[in-house]
Amino acid sequence: MSNTSSHVPDAQQVKSFLLGLQQNICQRLELLDGKATFKADSWEREEGGGGTSRVLTQGQVFEQAGVNFSHVMGAAMPASATAHRPELAGRSFEAMGVSLVIHPNNPFIPTTHANVRFFIARKEGADPVWWFGGGFDLTPYYPFKEDVVSWHQTAKDICDPFGEDVYPKYKKWCDEYFFLPHRNETRGVGGLFFDDLNEPGFERSFEFMQAVGNGFIEAYAPIVERNKELEYGDDERQFQLYRRGRYVEFNLVYDRGTLFGLQTGGRTESILMSMPPLVRWEYAFTPEEGTAEAELYDIYLKPQDWLAAV
Amino acid sequence: MSNTSSHVPDAQQVKSFLLGLQQNICQRLELLDGKATFKADSWEREEGGGGTSRVLTQGQVFEQAGVNFSHVMGAAMPASATAHRPELAGRSFEAMGVSLVIHPNNPFIPTTHANVRFFIARKEGADPVWWFGGGFDLTPYYPFKEDVVSWHQTAKDICDPFGEDVYPKYKKWCDEYFFLPHRNETRGVGGLFFDDLNEPGFERSFEFMQAVGNGFIEAYAPIVERNKELEYGDDERQFQLYRRGRYVEFNLVYDRGTLFGLQTGGRTESILMSMPPLVRWEYAFTPEEGTAEAELYDIYLKPQDWLAAV
Repeated sequence: MSNTSSHVPDAQQVKSFLLGLQQNICQRLELLDGKATFKADSWEREEGGGGTSRVLTQGQVFEQAGVNFSHVMGAAMPASATAHRPELAGRSFEAMGVSLVIHPNNPFIPTTHANVRFFIARKEGADPVWWFGGGFDLTPYYPFKEDVVSWHQTAKDICDPFGEDVYPKYKKWCDEYFFLPHRNETRGVGGLFFDDLNEPGFERSFEFMQAVGNGFIEAYAPIVERNKELEYGDDERQFQLYRRGRYVEFNLVYDRGTLFGLQTGGRTESILMSMPPLVRWEYAFTPEEGTAEAELYDIYLKPQDWLAAV
Repeated sequence: MSNTSSHVPDAQQVKSFLLGLQQNICQRLELLDGKATFKADSWEREEGGGGTSRVLTQGQVFEQAGVNFSHVMGAAMPASATAHRPELAGRSFEAMGVSLVIHPNNPFIPTTHANVRFFIARKEGADPVWWFGGGFDLTPYYPFKEDVVSWHQTAKDICDPFGEDVYPKYKKWCDEYFFLPHRNETRGVGGLFFDDLNEPGFERSFEFMQAVGNGFIEAYAPIVERNKELEYGDDERQFQLYRRGRYVEFNLVYDRGTLFGLQTGGRTESILMSMPPLVRWEYAFTPEEGTAEAELYDIYLKPQDWLAAV
């Protein structure tokens, strides 16, 4: 692969995009909430770099929303990152990204997570090695088919300009990644997940990452708008708190980003901003047959081709 | 090491003890609670063995208490168990134990965990390899010095007949094991932790395991009795829910037993019985200086020689 202009990565350009993205998403979420605003916390990392966490709590619509920007660097790739890419050992690295998790009050609005990131590994006398990654996924408690279809349709619309194989490939990757083997359940209804994106060159890869980053709020906002006024009672709230336990289980047991962060001395409060503000566990809970709760397990927590019937 | 009679392990004898221990602890906890009773759930494991989970919920004193007995076996040691003991690869194994976690309602009563276990690995034509492990630890929210001292004094009294180095050694092991590096905190005020116990022979090792198993409730019951009538308000309850988050973080990110169980197809509901019934996370919470909450962090969540001043 020749080092053509389209393969020269421009980290500064990516950083500008990410900072703008964080800003835009926070503004849109504040508009959707209509009451609470984001508070920002900047932090620095001893080994290099830092970030800004923005957190909105106790909103009208959102119980908690956290939108993190981080840009960290180091003289040597962490061991956990070179385990499956030994050719990168000994390189210096730079990583930047925006990562968000939103926990709504209303159990009829799904929880969601999105992330876009850029990684670059450098060595004197060699071309830099770089890649993009990211995606978004949706975790409903009381799913509406319409929401799940519109979510996946937006994901597909984002992907299609980049090739017709892109949506199916990254949709499948998402289903496989956000899966809890010990529960034999998906975390939710999926979305997109991609990593190691480098092949089409820097410009095209960056365009795709921008499309995913910008597309997230377009996929999520209509679902919030449609459901935020729906009335719910204590039963739905209790089920939401119970299901949030699965989110905790996934993030603490399996999520590579969370574990990588915790085990390499990342900023704990920013990493664990993904934890739900209130969570419940219940021994041996099983939903009653024929209920909305059972429908979640029977239909929505198994990978499906949501656009098949459209 | 000769295969003397004291080195012949009697798994059946250990099993009888463990079943009796589960029974005794549940009875004592029911007496302490004064209202709720344990419900039992027996389960079988496809690869061999099974267990009985006993769970008490929504008691007067205990919000949730789970006391598990399990006895599992397999034709080949799991890879994760032979990583640091390669000489055991290819052996069949048998593992049995009692494990419990208690989450009280009242924030003035500490959460606690205890476990005793026996492991045996067999190969035709060779002596079996076996060992005991276990311990107990205490996680207060609003600690009283008297409780922490009595807890450790009981632990020391259990250990002393087995040698004066036993308590300091296993107390230290506990502090080191129940530690959250990403928070730079201990999980609580510790207690005892031991593993790979085999050296003094089967009979003596088994005696020590029995002493720890039987001693747990003698260490915990007086603390419950002293504090169960103490009045508390919503602030204390909220802090308790927040601190329970640390318990979740430890068990899902670090606890070897939990991860081993989840990743080897153990019974999820029994393993995650350790999760608190209700938990809260709060971004960037810091206790105010001079409060009881700050005292927990400043004094109790750092390893200390609790019996030094006695």
